[in-house]
Amino acid sequence: MTSLGFGLIGTGFMGKTHAMAMKSVRAIMGDVPEVRLELLCDMPLANAQTRGDQFGFDRVTDDWQALINDPAVDIVSITTPNGMHRDMALAALAAGKHVWCEKPMALTLADAEAMAAAATASGKATMVGYNYIHNPAFTHAKRLIAAGRIGKPVHFRGWVDEDYQADPDLPWTWRATLKDAGLGALGDLGCHLVSMATGLLGPIDTVLGDLQVIHDTRPLPDGSGRATVENDDLATALVTFANGARGSISTSRSAWGRKNKLDWEVHGTQGMITFSQERMNELQLYVNEGDKAEAGFRTILTGPAHPPYGQFVPAPGHQLGFLDLKTMEAHALLRAIAEDRQPSPNFADALHFEAVIHRIAESANAGGVRLTV
Amino acid sequence: MTSLGFGLIGTGFMGKTHAMAMKSVRAIMGDVPEVRLELLCDMPLANAQTRGDQFGFDRVTDDWQALINDPAVDIVSITTPNGMHRDMALAALAAGKHVWCEKPMALTLADAEAMAAAATASGKATMVGYNYIHNPAFTHAKRLIAAGRIGKPVHFRGWVDEDYQADPDLPWTWRATLKDAGLGALGDLGCHLVSMATGLLGPIDTVLGDLQVIHDTRPLPDGSGRATVENDDLATALVTFANGARGSISTSRSAWGRKNKLDWEVHGTQGMITFSQERMNELQLYVNEGDKAEAGFRTILTGPAHPPYGQFVPAPGHQLGFLDLKTMEAHALLRAIAEDRQPSPNFADALHFEAVIHRIAESANAGGVRLTV
Amino acid sequence: MTSLGFGLIGTGFMGKTHAMAMKSVRAIMGDVPEVRLELLCDMPLANAQTRGDQFGFDRVTDDWQALINDPAVDIVSITTPNGMHRDMALAALAAGKHVWCEKPMALTLADAEAMAAAATASGKATMVGYNYIHNPAFTHAKRLIAAGRIGKPVHFRGWVDEDYQADPDLPWTWRATLKDAGLGALGDLGCHLVSMATGLLGPIDTVLGDLQVIHDTRPLPDGSGRATVENDDLATALVTFANGARGSISTSRSAWGRKNKLDWEVHGTQGMITFSQERMNELQLYVNEGDKAEAGFRTILTGPAHPPYGQFVPAPGHQLGFLDLKTMEAHALLRAIAEDRQPSPNFADALHFEAVIHRIAESANAGGVRLTV
Amino acid sequence: MTSLGFGLIGTGFMGKTHAMAMKSVRAIMGDVPEVRLELLCDMPLANAQTRGDQFGFDRVTDDWQALINDPAVDIVSITTPNGMHRDMALAALAAGKHVWCEKPMALTLADAEAMAAAATASGKATMVGYNYIHNPAFTHAKRLIAAGRIGKPVHFRGWVDEDYQADPDLPWTWRATLKDAGLGALGDLGCHLVSMATGLLGPIDTVLGDLQVIHDTRPLPDGSGRATVENDDLATALVTFANGARGSISTSRSAWGRKNKLDWEVHGTQGMITFSQERMNELQLYVNEGDKAEAGFRTILTGPAHPPYGQFVPAPGHQLGFLDLKTMEAHALLRAIAEDRQPSPNFADALHFEAVIHRIAESANAGGVRLTV
Repeated sequence: MTSLGFGLIGTGFMGKTHAMAMKSVRAIMGDVPEVRLELLCDMPLANAQTRGDQFGFDRVTDDWQALINDPAVDIVSITTPNGMHRDMALAALAAGKHVWCEKPMALTLADAEAMAAAATASGKATMVGYNYIHNPAFTHAKRLIAAGRIGKPVHFRGWVDEDYQADPDLPWTWRATLKDAGLGALGDLGCHLVSMATGLLGPIDTVLGDLQVIHDTRPLPDGSGRATVENDDLATALVTFANGARGSISTSRSAWGRKNKLDWEVHGTQGMITFSQERMNELQLYVNEGDKAEAGFRTILTGPAHPPYGQFVPAPGHQLGFLDLKTMEAHALLRAIAEDRQPSPNFADALHFEAVIHRIAESANAGGVRLTV
Repeated sequence: MTSLGFGLIGTGFMGKTHAMAMKSVRAIMGDVPEVRLELLCDMPLANAQTRGDQFGFDRVTDDWQALINDPAVDIVSITTPNGMHRDMALAALAAGKHVWCEKPMALTLADAEAMAAAATASGKATMVGYNYIHNPAFTHAKRLIAAGRIGKPVHFRGWVDEDYQADPDLPWTWRATLKDAGLGALGDLGCHLVSMATGLLGPIDTVLGDLQVIHDTRPLPDGSGRATVENDDLATALVTFANGARGSISTSRSAWGRKNKLDWEVHGTQGMITFSQERMNELQLYVNEGDKAEAGFRTILTGPAHPPYGQFVPAPGHQLGFLDLKTMEAHALLRAIAEDRQPSPNFADALHFEAVIHRIAESANAGGVRLTV
Repeated sequence: MTSLGFGLIGTGFMGKTHAMAMKSVRAIMGDVPEVRLELLCDMPLANAQTRGDQFGFDRVTDDWQALINDPAVDIVSITTPNGMHRDMALAALAAGKHVWCEKPMALTLADAEAMAAAATASGKATMVGYNYIHNPAFTHAKRLIAAGRIGKPVHFRGWVDEDYQADPDLPWTWRATLKDAGLGALGDLGCHLVSMATGLLGPIDTVLGDLQVIHDTRPLPDGSGRATVENDDLATALVTFANGARGSISTSRSAWGRKNKLDWEVHGTQGMITFSQERMNELQLYVNEGDKAEAGFRTILTGPAHPPYGQFVPAPGHQLGFLDLKTMEAHALLRAIAEDRQPSPNFADALHFEAVIHRIAESANAGGVRLTV
Repeated sequence: MTSLGFGLIGTGFMGKTHAMAMKSVRAIMGDVPEVRLELLCDMPLANAQTRGDQFGFDRVTDDWQALINDPAVDIVSITTPNGMHRDMALAALAAGKHVWCEKPMALTLADAEAMAAAATASGKATMVGYNYIHNPAFTHAKRLIAAGRIGKPVHFRGWVDEDYQADPDLPWTWRATLKDAGLGALGDLGCHLVSMATGLLGPIDTVLGDLQVIHDTRPLPDGSGRATVENDDLATALVTFANGARGSISTSRSAWGRKNKLDWEVHGTQGMITFSQERMNELQLYVNEGDKAEAGFRTILTGPAHPPYGQFVPAPGHQLGFLDLKTMEAHALLRAIAEDRQPSPNFADALHFEAVIHRIAESANAGGVRLTV
């Protein structure tokens, strides 16, 4: 395997996680090429320099187009604000680069569709940052369902809550606008839940949505008054899956005390599986078998029996963390590149997640009507 | 306080709990009249005799009308199959008795409305068996919300799941029919959740429902084939509350591993409260206050600080049980009788719970449209 | 079965639970004689009258000896301060009564020995109030161990903590004295843990103890200064069991936040069982079997599969409470009387628990030496 | 800051974690010098080559003395079997290298003492691999205690259990020998618990120990019979702390279902703190303050309010993992080197942990006598 050049645009929360993942992935997993941290882009240049030095990049720039066109760069990571994803992704694909893009793909479904179309046309590997579905607890749940351990899956319930917009006194920002931020909790959090729901039960085919703005105005930072919050603090939807299952999903960015409560439960005809991201190394499983007096939900602690956990820690129950999920995501991308195939979730896969959240908003804005995705 | 004569119709799960509650309530709580276990009705008479002897009733009968018209009976408990509630309740009220009736009130909303009207006309005390809302953990949650501890309550999520109809191989019974059983999970379990939701946030004013039959046929007990399951195994609804809050509720009788998972969470602008019936002596509270580094959900174990816990056990954390909830329910009825006022939830209160579940079914059957309760 | 007359001495926390249990036991369980609440004793007489009326006793007295000698009384419950147990029990046995006595049996081991000897000599049924070992979760654990589900039990760890003496500012009382209260946490809480440990693994044969007084003085109630706390706030012991297992136990009455944290774990060569009294309807079981990827501790919710749960509630997971444990204890006593045999734990059984806690204190006072029980 | 050359001896579980930590630490934390992965040593050479390539080392060797004497190496990590630690550490210190050594320091206390003495003499930075005490949840607990949030800490209970030696059918290995493995569970797991206990309450001054061999023989791998297990599967000790607190600790390597259950609780005169490593991102805190009706243990989810969590993930509740703890450990070492001071726990600090576990074994082997550490 020859080495691959990595170019990263953005050095915020997600930018740093991409850098860390690329630094670690070969040492952890072994079966991927060496990744050279070739070029980092951020603005202003001084920031790029500081971060490039810290993260260990060879070169830095403040010109994202230069990065995308740099011949030493094979993979471009896009971790900028969501409104910039489309232009960067289209340019990177046009320049023949593999693209790793953070979620959600774009502010609008049309932009996401353009990205997916460009990805398909390019033939390059694309990957969207739905890191939670790489968790061995999650992939184990998928395997259990596929193996029929809970019978036929018939119902899904999921929630994903945080409290970063719970405080009524937080100042108004661009995040509250449809133009600059697009969807609210749905776009930031809800799409993660959709990635899990569809990972477990397959595509969602209809939605019926309900949105709620909990804090309808917020104080302007300059003290000059209050401005309107235009997008959802909380969203809930009734959904149906193509396989006949039904379910509901809900998300809030204003749920006090919830830090990353991305929880779900899958009801099957012979059992149930549940998961909670705030305890991401555990899976709860109930199976209709054996002595009733001994039946109960089992707390499965992930370990080497749940690959690729063992690549990180060979001892069970020792705990993976958030950054490890990003390393697994990078691994999925690099393996796909090595095998000249598409990873998952690529732009086409992720387009479905985006379609679901946009349809939920559309349904809610139409007063609550069931829409086909 | 003069003593009261108690007549009980039915000796199944609920009948026994009513008998136990009436035997215990004065000894536990003190501030209610003595209750005489006057007359028990069940069929056949031999069963009434056996149970009457066991429970400690003075007399037994197999004629419910005789019980209702017995002059020594002041309070009539109705714990028969739901289809019989209306006639018995109307007769008991007509006979000038106080009535304690199990939930749901009736098979149809029309019947429940007739019962509520008769109750109002009679002026007698009525009580419906929504025992979970008498739990000190629940009433403490109500007090916390009323006191503004979580700010303004803005969202509610609730679930109530059991697995008594989860097994696909269970034989078909009359419980699967609309005619004899009415609603499915909604009528058996969902109404409890509605009693809690409205207890915490006030009346529900609109619903948008979704029903699911998980096992659409079941084997006939005589092996002659399979028959159709006509009512809901699972139901979900988007709801709005009269106070402006929104929320969702869901219930399943086919949720493997769930035994009495009657859980809810109330999101407020300054905090959150959550509860799980399978751990009914605990309440989770998060409040936006103090040092962020010390913030977290508190597990409040109920104790004497949460009346009337201390009447049952003077030491905190020692655990109340299901039967204790029924004793509290009996207490609420007896106190109301003593004070010549209506207890809660009386027939008029409970009519709202019934209206909500019937509207959910109606909404779902109409394809998912928002209906006013 | 002919009815039995019940006489109760004491109307505090435990007295009330004895009364409630005797009122409920036949209605709940069915297979025991009717119990007449014949005579109640407390001081002053006015208190006995109030409580007798509330609890439903036929007669009251302020003379415990009169109660013991009353011909209509068949069973005497002793729920007075521990220092009075011995004289009352000896008198009751001498009068030919069955005796139900609260734990610990007495202030000193010598007194407990005298009680056990008298019980044996009398041939009457005796019962000591170790209610936690009647919990169906506990008896299920015993059955699992006896059936070899966790292989050979090899180690036990247990703790029982409350916080009723945690506050440094609580005033000094007689409870802090060796003369009037005897042992501290060991006598009040630790003996419960011993009853569970030995119930699960059999007799303890050696102990090596450590005592701790956390608040060595407390303010006198009259403000005149401070007085010494003479007995243990916290005790820990290394123990060995006659079956070869080893273990440790610890108890505190000054453990902030703990309300009834009576927890234990049994390590076996093929599995583990754990329990926590604050979640008394749950049992955790891990068995070395099946697919490693699906292994985990199961949370078993008690239900009808765990007798006699179903006599209280026929639906699983609906929760038993503290008072229900006392009803089970009363049932064990009444069944034994009906079958003319000894119940468990009778005075002879309980003497072992008392011996263990006294030996722990003795070991600690000797500086930490291993003593044979 | 000039860069530092890193030499790693050993590529097993711990070797890999050291490599990963050194690869990541500067990118994550920022405030440390660049670390060059200079030289890796393992045997045979082919293994070193494979791992060196995977981990990203510049060079490899199969000669540990060559590594120690390599002029480009500034820091030597020792992750070989415990019996080799002493010679390697002494040689590395003699060669003027900083040393990062895995725990336990050595097979015997004498060896550990020799290492600590050499470290002091050398003036080089030394660090022992007690990674759990770098967890922000742990350091937050330390801060809470130091700030008096739970009053005066008076009691400690701790346990650390795994099940890697629980299966009776596992073959005998050198790990069962005193000569090659030294202590059993105490040496492998118990020392971690001691590092936490003393981190929270200060030095332990006396111990009274109890050892248990659960599987006293194991089958020889070649099927030729069974051999003796010489060291502890399980150990328990009563301990006292120099500050006057008392407590107990226990550890098992044969505890079915436990994967890394490194749990503890600190009792204070005004509150309690508890922790469980299997949920390493949570801390439980109870404080005696406020309304009793709202009191309860809080589940504190670690986040940016608990440094250095925010360097890993800027959003709370997103979860750190085991590898992140090693990165924090590396950071502590590198900061100390940069500031020309000793990190913690260095060889002198860790010697106390080793002394405690060896004294526990010595006490147990003497039949259970209290020994001064």
